[in-house]
Amino acid sequence: MLPTLTDLDALRSHLADAPGPHSAARAAAEARNGQLTKPPGALGRLEDLAIWYAGWRDTDRPEILAPQVIVFAGNHGVAARGVSAFPPEVTAQMVMNFQAGGAAINQLARVAGARMDVHALDLDRPTDDFTQGPAMTEADCTAALQTGWAAVDPAADLLVVGEMGIGNTTPAAALGAALFGGEAGDWTGRGTGVDDAGLAIKTQVVAEGLALHAGQGDGLDLLRRLGGRELAAMAGAIAAARMYRIPVILDGFICCAAAACLDQTVPGALDHTVAGHQSAEGAHAALLDHLGKAPMLSLGLRLGEGSGGALAIQILRAATACLSGMATFAEAGVSDA
Amino acid sequence: MLPTLTDLDALRSHLADAPGPHSAARAAAEARNGQLTKPPGALGRLEDLAIWYAGWRDTDRPEILAPQVIVFAGNHGVAARGVSAFPPEVTAQMVMNFQAGGAAINQLARVAGARMDVHALDLDRPTDDFTQGPAMTEADCTAALQTGWAAVDPAADLLVVGEMGIGNTTPAAALGAALFGGEAGDWTGRGTGVDDAGLAIKTQVVAEGLALHAGQGDGLDLLRRLGGRELAAMAGAIAAARMYRIPVILDGFICCAAAACLDQTVPGALDHTVAGHQSAEGAHAALLDHLGKAPMLSLGLRLGEGSGGALAIQILRAATACLSGMATFAEAGVSDA
Repeated sequence: MLPTLTDLDALRSHLADAPGPHSAARAAAEARNGQLTKPPGALGRLEDLAIWYAGWRDTDRPEILAPQVIVFAGNHGVAARGVSAFPPEVTAQMVMNFQAGGAAINQLARVAGARMDVHALDLDRPTDDFTQGPAMTEADCTAALQTGWAAVDPAADLLVVGEMGIGNTTPAAALGAALFGGEAGDWTGRGTGVDDAGLAIKTQVVAEGLALHAGQGDGLDLLRRLGGRELAAMAGAIAAARMYRIPVILDGFICCAAAACLDQTVPGALDHTVAGHQSAEGAHAALLDHLGKAPMLSLGLRLGEGSGGALAIQILRAATACLSGMATFAEAGVSDA
Repeated sequence: MLPTLTDLDALRSHLADAPGPHSAARAAAEARNGQLTKPPGALGRLEDLAIWYAGWRDTDRPEILAPQVIVFAGNHGVAARGVSAFPPEVTAQMVMNFQAGGAAINQLARVAGARMDVHALDLDRPTDDFTQGPAMTEADCTAALQTGWAAVDPAADLLVVGEMGIGNTTPAAALGAALFGGEAGDWTGRGTGVDDAGLAIKTQVVAEGLALHAGQGDGLDLLRRLGGRELAAMAGAIAAARMYRIPVILDGFICCAAAACLDQTVPGALDHTVAGHQSAEGAHAALLDHLGKAPMLSLGLRLGEGSGGALAIQILRAATACLSGMATFAEAGVSDA
């Protein structure tokens, strides 16, 4: 059990003291990979992914047996400004859909053999409109971080975090701009599908948020000011996974915006993560560039829920299966080059 | 049971009379997709893939339960010219590795829940050197096509074909150039990893083959002249899958070169196929362009064996799981946009 987060500083301390990968296991995995019955490098990115995963799991023959997908849901004050194509009540309706097994993430988690959990965060209490002040008090933000922090199963061997929250590409865009610079228009996209008028409103809302909060503190401060409960919970879960050395596959734009708040608080805080996919939401590519993460998949998804991350579980599992299950040249009696 | 192929013309006839997808099922899948609890288009390419698969399988709620991976192995006369980084005996050694479960494709097929079969084609009788004459007689080519044609399980619901054959990026490069034009150098790459001197020899061998065979007949004629037994067997299996309306995920450069011979014999012969991945072998991207196929994955693989195709099984299964398992807006009581 991890200690309860009492405030943002507590999380800052944990991140600063976070464990790294096991270098001996990583080196052993790299050596093993070099002896497997294939031309050097012929499995491309799968080789890098398997070696990375092996280091975090402290074994040169890792298996992915217990992946966990957690979906966090929250509501947003800025939704009242008309930034989404869907009404805010859809957040709670979709939580029921998750619980009933009817959403995309349910199917994707099942196919990936992953446990799936859903946490609804005070849906009847949207965050405050960040154009008027901070989205959350420190107490509210800490509580949301704690929900994510406590949601990670210490026995999981891989984590995907996803979200549902009508309007939440707006805080994600604001966070992207506040963390990495640029104009509101560079970071604001159509989300679930707003029309031109909606996009103009959304860009204006992001610009107002930036005017009020940009430059006000580190990544966690910006998460509190511009984020939302489900974004904070995702950040809390990603941080908790680091404490347990559980690798994380990042999902799309909103997940990466939440994750970036950790990276901009303590550099290297995302070393235990890979990018599952590149979303069709335009600014996700820029976010991945800033994080230095190359996506595993690029299939035009723009759903959230952890969908792209869950899809990528199977790629990572395939990568580890090759590293762990293949014969070496010597074992198979195959002539080397 | 499909009738035995007696000659190349028999396959030409089958391809000309091949069945297409079920348009009613495809339309029903498209309609269902539009009602699922997600913003329109938010699952990106997964939606197109699921609808395409549904049409071929004649149901708007398809499941992938019985994928089959078949690996064909052959040896090549041109290998004696020094076109590969590995010696020819590796083909037979790798067949033993496939049979013992130690190769990458064994792990990838297992993780994808696929049955895997291996067919070694006259390994002690390499094809003739195509710089001196046709690689195969019509009888030899027909026999190899028949091996693939008969290898497909009629009860499979998805097919991946892969190959092993030291030297076989050379016939694949020659086929690419003969089918689609361009210089030998445009189509010749490093395969399993030849050095600069090896690449120069390989390019020269491809150029000599083109000088002798380019323009000599249709795709099947060129397959006989420039291909190899495992390429012909792959083509035979892909054609058989079409007769059964079993969708096929194409693998890398060599698989696509074999498949292209069908497409250049009867246009549309590959309508039941999708491209599983884009290989790191340079000319694969051009081959996919000529076939009009966008790859599902691009992870730098260049192994063959069906590895990229097997990896993509899980993406396609995830796509069909969303189409078939998700609730509609009405079922879930979720407000539409």
